[in-house]
Amino acid sequence: MIQGTLYVISAPSGTGKSSLIKALLKTQLSYNIRVSISHTTRMKRTDEKNGEHYFFITKEKFQKMIKHNDFFEYAYIFGNYYGTSRSINEKILNSGVDVFLEIDWQGAQQIRNKMPRVCTIFILPPSKNELMHRLYTRGQDSEENINIRIKQTITEIKHYREYDYIIINDDFNIALDNLKSIIKSRHLKLKYQMHRYDNLINKLLED
Amino acid sequence: MIQGTLYVISAPSGTGKSSLIKALLKTQLSYNIRVSISHTTRMKRTDEKNGEHYFFITKEKFQKMIKHNDFFEYAYIFGNYYGTSRSINEKILNSGVDVFLEIDWQGAQQIRNKMPRVCTIFILPPSKNELMHRLYTRGQDSEENINIRIKQTITEIKHYREYDYIIINDDFNIALDNLKSIIKSRHLKLKYQMHRYDNLINKLLED
Repeated sequence: MIQGTLYVISAPSGTGKSSLIKALLKTQLSYNIRVSISHTTRMKRTDEKNGEHYFFITKEKFQKMIKHNDFFEYAYIFGNYYGTSRSINEKILNSGVDVFLEIDWQGAQQIRNKMPRVCTIFILPPSKNELMHRLYTRGQDSEENINIRIKQTITEIKHYREYDYIIINDDFNIALDNLKSIIKSRHLKLKYQMHRYDNLINKLLED
Repeated sequence: MIQGTLYVISAPSGTGKSSLIKALLKTQLSYNIRVSISHTTRMKRTDEKNGEHYFFITKEKFQKMIKHNDFFEYAYIFGNYYGTSRSINEKILNSGVDVFLEIDWQGAQQIRNKMPRVCTIFILPPSKNELMHRLYTRGQDSEENINIRIKQTITEIKHYREYDYIIINDDFNIALDNLKSIIKSRHLKLKYQMHRYDNLINKLLED
């Protein structure tokens, strides 16, 4: 079995990253893709399911997993841990399935160091005005919180050069088509096609 | 201006390579692509136009171009030269336009040596039966000529491993979509998008 590809998708807040991935998962593609489910130590909300939204675990268990080097990446944010399990995702990748990971530039940096063959994609908004509009209209935040979010967003965007691909999310369908093109073209590469069409190629080469 | 990509497309006879390229040129893409026009020393047929089907030149001129290293690749077939001009195609590539080249594995090998950044695509038929059917029903050839064509085809297919991408031409529209994915995904790579969205990115990063 040929390994699936690990895709990392990063984007500033409000760029439509999650909607794109949701739409991608609904698309008919001729190969399997999955979204990675993170581990976290934060409390489960009532509308969340363990193993679906997150794997909810204790701090002790999380720290044990860190010790065993079982994270592609992890972060400690406002008193809680969030991380991407290495063993779970490697199992999925080894079964030939592609895995998508929505994480920020810091997580992406950690993963690049551990998985040099990761494919990284950065999504940008179509304009400064649109970005500001999205940041301002998201929730009922105070001016202060909005300013913090703008600063974080600019920091995130500064890291776009570390990614393999850039998608501009102006027209949603074009952005989705672009995302699909990246995945499709990877599957058209020699090593994937050789594996997939092994029988056909042997037949064609028979005298 | 960022350079266009040189694409080499090879395929055994009757795999639909020319139809795919023709359909690709009719497609709306957000970047420019062109098909390379070869030079040849063979006689122009009455329905052919110089500069459209081929550049028709004399043997003397062709040999002079060889001496001046002005071919990405050339071949001498049944008493005539056929070749791909380096200077003409480099001019097109330098203007940011992608160039498509339909050539066989021997031409592809020559180009790989001269242009390491070339992107090469091999097209395969969907089955041995389909391949045989296409080879037999093409024109009113003698049994002997058909056998020669089958041998050439198998030789051609043996070189599939030298290519970057493999497309199976079973359903024409899927094969065309695959071809487009390869081109699109290349344009989504960081260096192309950085160049294309230079203004947007600078604006986004302003305080």
